[in-house]
Amino acid sequence: MPVPHHVFDPPFNIVRCSHVMLDVADLGASRAFYEGAIGLHVEDADDNVVYLRGCEEHQHHSLVLRKAASPGCARIAFKVASEDDLDKAAAFCAENKLPHTFVEQPFQGRTLVLTDPFGVRIGLYATMDRRPSLLRRYDLYKGCHPQRLDHFNIFAPEVQDTVDFYARLGFRLTEYAEEDGEDGRIAAAWMHRKGNVHDLAFTNGSGPRLHHFAYWVPSPLNILHLCDVMATTGYLPSLERGPGRHGISNAFFLYVRDPDGHRLEIYTSDYQTMDPDHAPLRWSLRDPRRQTLWGAPAPRSWFEEGTPFAGQAVREPQFIADVIVAD
Amino acid sequence: MPVPHHVFDPPFNIVRCSHVMLDVADLGASRAFYEGAIGLHVEDADDNVVYLRGCEEHQHHSLVLRKAASPGCARIAFKVASEDDLDKAAAFCAENKLPHTFVEQPFQGRTLVLTDPFGVRIGLYATMDRRPSLLRRYDLYKGCHPQRLDHFNIFAPEVQDTVDFYARLGFRLTEYAEEDGEDGRIAAAWMHRKGNVHDLAFTNGSGPRLHHFAYWVPSPLNILHLCDVMATTGYLPSLERGPGRHGISNAFFLYVRDPDGHRLEIYTSDYQTMDPDHAPLRWSLRDPRRQTLWGAPAPRSWFEEGTPFAGQAVREPQFIADVIVAD
Amino acid sequence: MPVPHHVFDPPFNIVRCSHVMLDVADLGASRAFYEGAIGLHVEDADDNVVYLRGCEEHQHHSLVLRKAASPGCARIAFKVASEDDLDKAAAFCAENKLPHTFVEQPFQGRTLVLTDPFGVRIGLYATMDRRPSLLRRYDLYKGCHPQRLDHFNIFAPEVQDTVDFYARLGFRLTEYAEEDGEDGRIAAAWMHRKGNVHDLAFTNGSGPRLHHFAYWVPSPLNILHLCDVMATTGYLPSLERGPGRHGISNAFFLYVRDPDGHRLEIYTSDYQTMDPDHAPLRWSLRDPRRQTLWGAPAPRSWFEEGTPFAGQAVREPQFIADVIVAD
Amino acid sequence: MPVPHHVFDPPFNIVRCSHVMLDVADLGASRAFYEGAIGLHVEDADDNVVYLRGCEEHQHHSLVLRKAASPGCARIAFKVASEDDLDKAAAFCAENKLPHTFVEQPFQGRTLVLTDPFGVRIGLYATMDRRPSLLRRYDLYKGCHPQRLDHFNIFAPEVQDTVDFYARLGFRLTEYAEEDGEDGRIAAAWMHRKGNVHDLAFTNGSGPRLHHFAYWVPSPLNILHLCDVMATTGYLPSLERGPGRHGISNAFFLYVRDPDGHRLEIYTSDYQTMDPDHAPLRWSLRDPRRQTLWGAPAPRSWFEEGTPFAGQAVREPQFIADVIVAD
Repeated sequence: MPVPHHVFDPPFNIVRCSHVMLDVADLGASRAFYEGAIGLHVEDADDNVVYLRGCEEHQHHSLVLRKAASPGCARIAFKVASEDDLDKAAAFCAENKLPHTFVEQPFQGRTLVLTDPFGVRIGLYATMDRRPSLLRRYDLYKGCHPQRLDHFNIFAPEVQDTVDFYARLGFRLTEYAEEDGEDGRIAAAWMHRKGNVHDLAFTNGSGPRLHHFAYWVPSPLNILHLCDVMATTGYLPSLERGPGRHGISNAFFLYVRDPDGHRLEIYTSDYQTMDPDHAPLRWSLRDPRRQTLWGAPAPRSWFEEGTPFAGQAVREPQFIADVIVAD
Repeated sequence: MPVPHHVFDPPFNIVRCSHVMLDVADLGASRAFYEGAIGLHVEDADDNVVYLRGCEEHQHHSLVLRKAASPGCARIAFKVASEDDLDKAAAFCAENKLPHTFVEQPFQGRTLVLTDPFGVRIGLYATMDRRPSLLRRYDLYKGCHPQRLDHFNIFAPEVQDTVDFYARLGFRLTEYAEEDGEDGRIAAAWMHRKGNVHDLAFTNGSGPRLHHFAYWVPSPLNILHLCDVMATTGYLPSLERGPGRHGISNAFFLYVRDPDGHRLEIYTSDYQTMDPDHAPLRWSLRDPRRQTLWGAPAPRSWFEEGTPFAGQAVREPQFIADVIVAD
Repeated sequence: MPVPHHVFDPPFNIVRCSHVMLDVADLGASRAFYEGAIGLHVEDADDNVVYLRGCEEHQHHSLVLRKAASPGCARIAFKVASEDDLDKAAAFCAENKLPHTFVEQPFQGRTLVLTDPFGVRIGLYATMDRRPSLLRRYDLYKGCHPQRLDHFNIFAPEVQDTVDFYARLGFRLTEYAEEDGEDGRIAAAWMHRKGNVHDLAFTNGSGPRLHHFAYWVPSPLNILHLCDVMATTGYLPSLERGPGRHGISNAFFLYVRDPDGHRLEIYTSDYQTMDPDHAPLRWSLRDPRRQTLWGAPAPRSWFEEGTPFAGQAVREPQFIADVIVAD
Repeated sequence: MPVPHHVFDPPFNIVRCSHVMLDVADLGASRAFYEGAIGLHVEDADDNVVYLRGCEEHQHHSLVLRKAASPGCARIAFKVASEDDLDKAAAFCAENKLPHTFVEQPFQGRTLVLTDPFGVRIGLYATMDRRPSLLRRYDLYKGCHPQRLDHFNIFAPEVQDTVDFYARLGFRLTEYAEEDGEDGRIAAAWMHRKGNVHDLAFTNGSGPRLHHFAYWVPSPLNILHLCDVMATTGYLPSLERGPGRHGISNAFFLYVRDPDGHRLEIYTSDYQTMDPDHAPLRWSLRDPRRQTLWGAPAPRSWFEEGTPFAGQAVREPQFIADVIVAD
């Protein structure tokens, strides 16, 4: 794989991944899941939309649930550094012939919605309403006590091209999995803007589809407690994979499916990557510890199922790796 | 100290410590403390009394709060193995001229209330109403998620005599602190019936008074979370000592005071002691790690304050140890 | 299932499960596994045998590894309350025509070795050399820091008969799994002497064989750390099942296989059961949370493989439950 | 307090705090402390110097111990983004008349050593020898398993001026403590470059002196284990304060003193701060939870003792806050 050299002076400045907007069939069921079981904080809600956030987040929302006829991912969203960056992003879209438009989104400033060259729907904004951190509101502890949205993981039919595109936007590669041999193709990649393992990861597969979004928790015990709570309150079928340890990113993980099948990762661990000369870590597709350090296999659904982006067709991947590779 | 040889065939068979009955000035405030902050489960309640238990306990109550004109400890209570043991206990009391009487206590069978030779008020019973264990009700997790009552600690003015008396009742010594030298006097003792470090401990001091009762939790993180919850919900002044590690019993501990000043220990760790030839562990009064392995001193209140038993006069201790000795 | 009424006055007094003696092919490899990876403390060793114990254990050994031509379980062993109980046990064996003999076993007193009616090889003794507890030797922390041997689990071809036999010896039932319906047969049973969930459990299957022996650790994090250590030091294939939560006993568990395939459980959680009127908990074979609260299936090996007792033939089970039932 | 507006385009680009160089009297004793008790990894060592790092760090060292006649802090060091930034930094020093010189430092590239306007000795460099991350070397787990250097805390006699100077260098304020009232003076400040609570904090006091440097660990249990290890291996007097929770930064902390009295914080928790519009959190000096959420007071030594910078005079603070303010 030609490891992409991330751009230090990207066309506009993305600070970090910020929130995800999901279309859900039954708003009440989804709210019960994310608020009652997972333990996110509901910041605002009406009959059509629920806004939630993690306890350390000081902006209004990191998860937006919208009542919709058919489930899907409306968009994943990133915060940019300034209003000026929004205009630069719009110019970049125009220049690169990417569909884009400014929209109104409650509780946040000007919002640019664009479609990347591969069909991923993306929101960009610079300012959002602020709310007091709930980090010291220990009385509100519930579920796994999610602290902050950490990253998105996308099924990409063209991983190499996708990685190259995001490197141009300043995303830096931290870990990747590829086939062995001289012409080994990249099968998965982890890229960041904010200084930890990732804001955005890509996995070879039918796409574009959202594989999962992830919330960070402070300790593995938060995750074990969530398993116990879900298994004894009717959410046993929602426990898809884990708990376990990824070799990649060293994350202790749990994957759960919400009432519409959208996949949420709860994870802890991670490490810092803000050094400009931080070297990416390569994993051979043949090393099984990459996916599951402890050896327990992931279920088939985890490799195959994902959430399409609203209005975007899903394509087959460019190649079938000789080892199952989603991570 | 003459280490007492516990009696293998005691006059009646005490199984374990079972519950404590506290007189409280404001029943609502006490319930808010034990249910809302600490996280005990309220099993029954009316205007005059609240019954609570820990999540693994399968009997109706381990803590009984009674509305009373003046706060105090009505009694500490132990479960005996059978109804027959209750009659044997009554006979023992008669023979030893200990005040005793059978009383009605809701939710439990025949109950013998006696006063030991030192003024400690004790309840004995063989059967109590059963309730389903809440151990797998992870959705009810709250506060520090107390699992079970573990032991009582008593300020005793005559420690050696008290230890000798309870050894006659079959309590076995597991750890003790004494002065150095040939005539070193015992200053504190830990004794058990149920097979862990203690059901009952005695500390040299003005008494008889209840120093504390203790609930066991599964992990130090439960205790750290309780500190966070209490410190941010108005209970900061209730945090008296800890968290820390006792050398004795290897317990990770926290001491809190309820609205009437009754002292509750939350602790974890412990070890098994059911071997008949289990040898007690001696601590010199001069070893500071006995009380606090990590060196942080306990506040004065912890050495001096305790809850009198209803109707019992408090006596000064027989000797003042040359080192402060309460543990 | 006719729930057995355990005998309060058994023919001899078993205190608790005490140690297991395993025959191993490569003593060095086995020692490396139990000392280096698991973290048990080697108390004594020579060219033919290694003695190990957990950090809270105050007796000389809880695991004995013997160099042998073929791997197997030489015996599981229990501590009895007194020398007198050993003689009573010998008399019981004679009366019930059970093969038995007194043998020399280093570091412990008189040792009675017997074969139970089903072919399980059992050692009994009253006294063992004592060693200082290592509970406060935090500098020796290694692997999962096992604290004490907790129980044995046996594949039994005749579960009901086996349970009835051990109830006569004073073992009390705490949990059991059985078929639904009036004639539902018992498929697994957990029995104790020491006051927690079990000293001895039986699972329907080809036997007699040792399914596993278990060490207790203080926290789930000890188990997660062991997974990480084993996965990155060449022991990945030894991780057989878990980590996960059993519904039964509420245990957080990990099953690993030693170099000879002997199975070791590392677990935490548990609850107290010393009340004489403690009621056993019934699980339907159709409730999957019994085995794995969180839903992840156990591998086939876990249901099928076990360690034969030296010199004992293995029989097929009396019935095949319509649901896989080993726990 | 006039909250400083951090500069988005600072004169040179500091990425993060990187390492500290300490002068120590007995190199063997210091190595035993940091490697044997704390658990840092020794990367290189000779008779005069020892280089150590945390397990996630991919650069050669984050702690340098130098044998010296008198103990002190030789310098604290930051990584800059590029060689070009080093030249810009030198130009900035020249322009602002700050003493500065390029020195040779083994295992790293060009190194600029400067003295800030207040006497703090600072090293800057862009590249350091890389080493493989030890994050997945779970077999090396020791002590508290420190993961990475996180920040420095400096006693500053002129806090407001110091904060203003570092804001010019691009450090952003995240939390601060100040006197109440219109003219309330700032008494402590936390500032970052890397996107968490701090790289550099300042506390009103005699200085310039290093109050402490801090390593991050993944969980409070790492810290509790370190307390247990230190208390039972002769390092009890080294435990200065904690464990406890700071209100500020929500950190779970422990402060220990090395053989020369240099202070090390071990801590966990934290939160992300990379948003350009992240608003700093103000604490009143009168809020005791700022320092210790759970109420336990810090010892006098913690407020008064610190490590001078080699060759720099120590000045009294400009004002004495009416409440003790070090955090």
